[in-house]
Amino acid sequence: MKSYRKELWFNVPTRRSFINITPQVETCLSESGIREGLALVNAMHITASVFINDDESGLHHDYEVFLEKLAPHEPTSAYWHNQTGEDNGDAHIKRQLMGRDVVVAITEGRLDFGPWEQIFYGEFDGGRRKRVLVKIIGE
Amino acid sequence: MKSYRKELWFNVPTRRSFINITPQVETCLSESGIREGLALVNAMHITASVFINDDESGLHHDYEVFLEKLAPHEPTSAYWHNQTGEDNGDAHIKRQLMGRDVVVAITEGRLDFGPWEQIFYGEFDGGRRKRVLVKIIGE
Amino acid sequence: MKSYRKELWFNVPTRRSFINITPQVETCLSESGIREGLALVNAMHITASVFINDDESGLHHDYEVFLEKLAPHEPTSAYWHNQTGEDNGDAHIKRQLMGRDVVVAITEGRLDFGPWEQIFYGEFDGGRRKRVLVKIIGE
Repeated sequence: MKSYRKELWFNVPTRRSFINITPQVETCLSESGIREGLALVNAMHITASVFINDDESGLHHDYEVFLEKLAPHEPTSAYWHNQTGEDNGDAHIKRQLMGRDVVVAITEGRLDFGPWEQIFYGEFDGGRRKRVLVKIIGE
Repeated sequence: MKSYRKELWFNVPTRRSFINITPQVETCLSESGIREGLALVNAMHITASVFINDDESGLHHDYEVFLEKLAPHEPTSAYWHNQTGEDNGDAHIKRQLMGRDVVVAITEGRLDFGPWEQIFYGEFDGGRRKRVLVKIIGE
Repeated sequence: MKSYRKELWFNVPTRRSFINITPQVETCLSESGIREGLALVNAMHITASVFINDDESGLHHDYEVFLEKLAPHEPTSAYWHNQTGEDNGDAHIKRQLMGRDVVVAITEGRLDFGPWEQIFYGEFDGGRRKRVLVKIIGE
């Protein structure tokens, strides 16, 4: 069994953003030399997500509206978590709704995807350097 | 390390439905000959889910009501995604809430489940052929 | 390829609670002797979650408030599932929002975590014995 590990780093200038990281994950897979196995891609921070959906800007707007309606950033005093001095209570909830990680099948050396699947980094508390972990096992 | 791959195809006539796919996944596991490992089961389409919960019709009604309340199909104009000509903006959100994939432990050749765990395909934009991927690795 | 399996048992006296199970998972990893691979940690019951987030009591309060607002326990008659004689319709929804399982990379014999990642058992229908499965594969 082979294993491969890489960290992808991001520094999103805005508070929230969705970034298509499929090309970076494909590069990882190519570097790994793994042909059959599983790839785990996960946010290493707890106010960010990794998820799979469509690379369509209108949809990303809809996600933003949906998440901000369910767990609004303001008023920050609404979240007990923010009594710690943070202002990211909403981000911990948004990340939970969108998910921490995805697991992707590796088949014949490729990400085994349906026609529209793309991997996204979802940032909900930007303005600083944060990481995604790519771990691939197989052979 | 062995690996196994199969696509399960669905054509749900209604817009939304939950289908118990545990028997099909068990058949895959049996075909794979894998006794110890991990099975990934994921929707290959981004308006559908794979999730694990109870095979109880009242619960499925409750999920339907809950999801339709949070992300109603109508008015379709509420979703920017639908400006692309689609009418499935709600389905992309519903799928995100219910999840894309599950990972199941394989132990002694069986799906290593608690007493009520069953695997479901969740369709949120039916009326056409769509796929689920089953990938099993182990030995 | 090595594989390791263990059940962690809980009996939460209250209806809902979040319990940090990272130390128990680390013990499992140590027992497994696996240095490179993947660990699956999943609730074996369908009214409980396993998720990764921050070990901060204010945040856990915020999750409780958020989940109870979206899917309140009362009135129990609001859920068709409860016509089966259960009163845990809300718990099936809460579990779905928080997730069933996490997959964690194993690197150099450690849980490959970012700075604040901790694994939690989320109980939404306590008062009885329930289980979490830890399955680790690798070498």
